[in-house]
Amino acid sequence: MTDPLAGKKVAIIGLGLIGGSVARGLAALGVCREIVGVGRNEESLQKALADGTITAFSTDVARSCAGADLVLIAVPTMSVTAVFRELQPVFNDSMVVTDAASVKGAIVEAAKEIFGETPVNFVPGHPIAGSEHSGYGASSGNLYQGKKVILTPLPQTSPEAIALVRALWQAMGAEVIDMAVDHHDAVLAATSHLPHLLAYALVDTLSQQGASEEIFRYAAGGFRDFTRIASSDPQMWHDIFMTNGEATVEVLDKYIDDLQRLRRIILDRDSGKLMTTFRRAKKSRDRFLELFANGNPSKDAQH
Amino acid sequence: MTDPLAGKKVAIIGLGLIGGSVARGLAALGVCREIVGVGRNEESLQKALADGTITAFSTDVARSCAGADLVLIAVPTMSVTAVFRELQPVFNDSMVVTDAASVKGAIVEAAKEIFGETPVNFVPGHPIAGSEHSGYGASSGNLYQGKKVILTPLPQTSPEAIALVRALWQAMGAEVIDMAVDHHDAVLAATSHLPHLLAYALVDTLSQQGASEEIFRYAAGGFRDFTRIASSDPQMWHDIFMTNGEATVEVLDKYIDDLQRLRRIILDRDSGKLMTTFRRAKKSRDRFLELFANGNPSKDAQH
Repeated sequence: MTDPLAGKKVAIIGLGLIGGSVARGLAALGVCREIVGVGRNEESLQKALADGTITAFSTDVARSCAGADLVLIAVPTMSVTAVFRELQPVFNDSMVVTDAASVKGAIVEAAKEIFGETPVNFVPGHPIAGSEHSGYGASSGNLYQGKKVILTPLPQTSPEAIALVRALWQAMGAEVIDMAVDHHDAVLAATSHLPHLLAYALVDTLSQQGASEEIFRYAAGGFRDFTRIASSDPQMWHDIFMTNGEATVEVLDKYIDDLQRLRRIILDRDSGKLMTTFRRAKKSRDRFLELFANGNPSKDAQH
Repeated sequence: MTDPLAGKKVAIIGLGLIGGSVARGLAALGVCREIVGVGRNEESLQKALADGTITAFSTDVARSCAGADLVLIAVPTMSVTAVFRELQPVFNDSMVVTDAASVKGAIVEAAKEIFGETPVNFVPGHPIAGSEHSGYGASSGNLYQGKKVILTPLPQTSPEAIALVRALWQAMGAEVIDMAVDHHDAVLAATSHLPHLLAYALVDTLSQQGASEEIFRYAAGGFRDFTRIASSDPQMWHDIFMTNGEATVEVLDKYIDDLQRLRRIILDRDSGKLMTTFRRAKKSRDRFLELFANGNPSKDAQH
């Protein structure tokens, strides 16, 4: 069987952690005809060209993508619309386009807006492989090994387009899963968007306290791990909450209710309910660890 | 200068992560006359005797502590009162007692209750070296290397007693800091107790959702780190919230206010305020990382 990526021209728009890691993975694979990097940060593009990750680069989306077999858009969620607009003049039926944004509803809407309808050869996607580190410097050809990538094709999406995007991520070592757009946004609101909001909020609450320097001085490893995601790229997360606010607020409201319940339990010094809650949570977390270990053979490779 | 621990009989009550790690550290040091382990879990005590960590063990507090120069109480916060009661018959002026509980106000109150007043040779202490792992099996003689230990002596506490406890923790490689009791409980409520509550609550909120198995399945490394502390010992954390509830609820209320403010910002799609908050939080978290790296040379040794 021929490698579906063999001889293909691939254009990657946005050469940060996500796009840069795909470019490195493809370069290591060595079957593509061309790997073109597109971005605004010319320094990163120069580096990627110098280290042999890409075969050419440009800051012009249309020029770089003309004749591409596969285009991966790996820019912050709210910048995807602008990329669609720049891509539109050279977009055609033999070009498969996918994206890597963390929110899928807003991206499908943006595609509809720019292309009139969501094109059959556009496959919305989301690699679950983020990190608090960002930029090309943090990228790695192994980033997706054992990670999950969620695709959210629409009923009209072309099976051939899905197959090519699936082949791309499988070549990166990822497990590819299909999901409905709304379901993706609800699940990710719970497991990713809410925790990031909570971590940003905690660091912000404490930094607004008097003597915050002293508070941080006595924080330990637990605090470091809990707040790791608050070091993530503000622009990326701004875009996520601007475009997946509804689903996030829905699960946030449940969380605040739970916090209020625990607050009441603590003030009542209700020993039984406190133990029940903590035991149940520990059990669930231990169950998550099992699932995580099974689904992520190379979890320690993550940045 | 003679080692202040040389020739001393040390009794360690509770041979879990905290007490077991001190016992191992002292055994490696090799200057104490006796290291007696006291606990309820005879299997752990047998193991510690077999591996040469302790020189003797008992399940009887009074018998083991008779004639001890230094007693370390390393049991969950709410069990300290019972230990004080068992210790009381053999307690005398030449015995220095310290503890390792995460809450200090409740411990000082308990000492007052059992001994009539807080004894001058009792030095309340708290090593900031927890982990989501617990038990003797998780203990390590290097646990305290580069970690902070907070002592909260009272105005009447004997300087000689403080010096011996300080020497114990310094011998473990820790940095020892003095702090007022109330201040300790407020600082720890913010940096440790609140984050644990938030992590337990998040895992619990999500596990109560329909299709929680699926939600956990798509959670990634960020979620794993954010919720690591929800795998902590439920009994230990039950005790902490039962005894430091007031200080925790005070900072929890500020946090919930902040979440409500962010909720409003998200629903308003207020781009400017969202960016400002995330940028400020990232800056604070990066500042914490600097402080943490400077104060914790061996941070990677932490469990």
